[in-house]
Amino acid sequence: MKPRIVIVGAGFGGLAAAQGLARADVDITLIDGRNHHLFQPLLYQVATAGLSPADIAAPIRAILRDQANVRVVLAWVVGVDRAGRRVQLADGRHVAYDRLIIATGAQHSYLGNDDWASRAPGIKSIDDATAVRRKVLLALEQAETETDPDVRHALLTFAVIGGGPTGVEMAGAIAELTRRSVSRDFRSITPQCSRVLLVEAGPRLLNSFTEAMAEKALAAIRALGVTVLLGKKVEAISDRFVDVGGIRIPCRTVIWAAGVEASPAAAWLEAPADAAGRVLVRDDLTLPGHPEIQVIGDTAALADGTALPGIAPVAKQQGRHAARTIVTGKAMPFRYRDRGKLATIGRHQAVIEYGRLRLSGPLAWLLWCTAHIYFLVGFRNRLEVGIRWLWSYLTFDRSARLITGATTQIQGDRP
Amino acid sequence: MKPRIVIVGAGFGGLAAAQGLARADVDITLIDGRNHHLFQPLLYQVATAGLSPADIAAPIRAILRDQANVRVVLAWVVGVDRAGRRVQLADGRHVAYDRLIIATGAQHSYLGNDDWASRAPGIKSIDDATAVRRKVLLALEQAETETDPDVRHALLTFAVIGGGPTGVEMAGAIAELTRRSVSRDFRSITPQCSRVLLVEAGPRLLNSFTEAMAEKALAAIRALGVTVLLGKKVEAISDRFVDVGGIRIPCRTVIWAAGVEASPAAAWLEAPADAAGRVLVRDDLTLPGHPEIQVIGDTAALADGTALPGIAPVAKQQGRHAARTIVTGKAMPFRYRDRGKLATIGRHQAVIEYGRLRLSGPLAWLLWCTAHIYFLVGFRNRLEVGIRWLWSYLTFDRSARLITGATTQIQGDRP
Repeated sequence: MKPRIVIVGAGFGGLAAAQGLARADVDITLIDGRNHHLFQPLLYQVATAGLSPADIAAPIRAILRDQANVRVVLAWVVGVDRAGRRVQLADGRHVAYDRLIIATGAQHSYLGNDDWASRAPGIKSIDDATAVRRKVLLALEQAETETDPDVRHALLTFAVIGGGPTGVEMAGAIAELTRRSVSRDFRSITPQCSRVLLVEAGPRLLNSFTEAMAEKALAAIRALGVTVLLGKKVEAISDRFVDVGGIRIPCRTVIWAAGVEASPAAAWLEAPADAAGRVLVRDDLTLPGHPEIQVIGDTAALADGTALPGIAPVAKQQGRHAARTIVTGKAMPFRYRDRGKLATIGRHQAVIEYGRLRLSGPLAWLLWCTAHIYFLVGFRNRLEVGIRWLWSYLTFDRSARLITGATTQIQGDRP
Repeated sequence: MKPRIVIVGAGFGGLAAAQGLARADVDITLIDGRNHHLFQPLLYQVATAGLSPADIAAPIRAILRDQANVRVVLAWVVGVDRAGRRVQLADGRHVAYDRLIIATGAQHSYLGNDDWASRAPGIKSIDDATAVRRKVLLALEQAETETDPDVRHALLTFAVIGGGPTGVEMAGAIAELTRRSVSRDFRSITPQCSRVLLVEAGPRLLNSFTEAMAEKALAAIRALGVTVLLGKKVEAISDRFVDVGGIRIPCRTVIWAAGVEASPAAAWLEAPADAAGRVLVRDDLTLPGHPEIQVIGDTAALADGTALPGIAPVAKQQGRHAARTIVTGKAMPFRYRDRGKLATIGRHQAVIEYGRLRLSGPLAWLLWCTAHIYFLVGFRNRLEVGIRWLWSYLTFDRSARLITGATTQIQGDRP
């Protein structure tokens, strides 16, 4: 019987692992709770109505259509039986493995304030992104007809918590959406009416970037009209306000981009984890004492303390590394090849650091666009996203501005 | 003060009415419970993963951006105070009018079997369409790993109830999706595995078309592998089966396309309605005794018995007529100019009747495509849908195949 390889999670890491085994004589089972691979770096564009979900997601089956040694299973994993070498699914089924690769990514961490989750959604999945889109668009709709100036002001205040790349990208996109794209469509909302706050507890934005680049990003995001609050902690979040650094700010829309924690893989494996819940792995990405189990991407941390950023290139390289380990049968230490860091700010600014290269401004933005379109899975998506961006760039149009799902909670009961 | 025109509903009729008043010296309030105008004739393509929601929907505000005399209000209407001349919103607000145009369309009618609504969803809104898409795609996912042959067979049986244009289009699209597009992506599902049923209680399909064209449509849909059951009534629908003409067919996915009834406008107006709930109006589309109220589109029926089909051209022409009545101040009888009938069957067949012109086959399909792309609101959508269709035509790709929303009810609880 061929070796049974089970991969849990079809994000960047899991998919790279499966594809790295394309020519291996093995039986692969790729398990994911969703039917699509998601290009997470562009999810904020779905949340801000610039792109449609299908532009940045592709069915896992379609991606792996021609790889005959993979079987895709749509299911949520709830545990791992290490002794019996099988993965336990939520519906009660089990999947046996000879080698296991866990690549289940990360989820939001509210730093102990779990009640904030419902008030300040973050974006990790398509459903998260369309929920944020609904929230932002409904706030604008309500503001259009609201007569109480205080309520109106709160409706037009949008707070993004967290000054990392995701927070900067979200704040920039919301500023453009609320201050430019849509203000033409409303009768009573002008660009000056709405306020976008970006709240960061640390002393500066983008702390993984150099100080000079962070300064450039700060200037660029301010130029978009975003109010940046540095060194301010969020103390409370309610449906009506957010408390930041001792000040109460009336605000109806809060978006979380402040922190993530690993998926519960450490609990499944009964394995030691770091503070962020990431499974501690050896330098060859295996679980200590279990050479048959590898943990990769945002779910793993190297036990030797080497810190790797939680970005797609790390996950992809680790996925390929895990596949190579299986193909060659040799345990090799993983070495990360730095592919640089990127963050985009609105429609024509970005900052890029790649080795000693530092780039900011429109050229960096163009490079960012090209890289992201290039890495999008599937040619059709590339073509369409390219057209859409070009169109939206030229016209400021935001045509994915649909409010879907339950609108009743705000608009009153539907008859 | 300028005359206050209130239009309820931003479908084809309401939008045409608003646009027909573009140059009038009036204050228009356009009220809709959703923020987007929907190109309903293509909704079945969203349900079958051929198009994304944003391809066939555009924000109402964006469409009317440059028409300064319109105010768009996102709200559900729950009643009309005829004596006080004001519309009542679900959130308790009221909107006063001098002239009222009601264009709230139709909803599904389960012919007295309201419990079928949850088991056999129809498609009228984007949320309906993505729900049907989820149902169909999840059935395929479950079938892929199901080992019980009977359950598997039921999962791969798809029944469409109703043989009008919508039913024919849905059945054709589901057949192509399940029998061709996706079978390449599954390991255990071949085109022969799945079965699509089209159930019609009457003696033939497309009863609004001539018999000859209905025959051509029947042949075309059979060629796609659809099993057509004519003269068979649906007697029961459950989560596990559908009873048709005395026979129990195990089936997990049933889609409703058999009948509609008007929105509850007749109740709001306390006005006489026909059997389908449509408000009976005079030949100038006004409510008898209320020249200031006009009812148009699927919500209205002419009291003189003239039968008009429930299609977009009728709604649009009536919307323009209602606007003209207001502009000229003269009550004129509405005359429908027949724009023909269209139904498409799969990827390259259609039937068209326009006056004495009868067209079927690939040329009709091409004409159908051109007409639909032309009528899509907004240039960007036209361009993108054109590209998407061309691409999907050439490759059989179905890239909008995303399962979004709660998948937990079927896959077990998510941890």
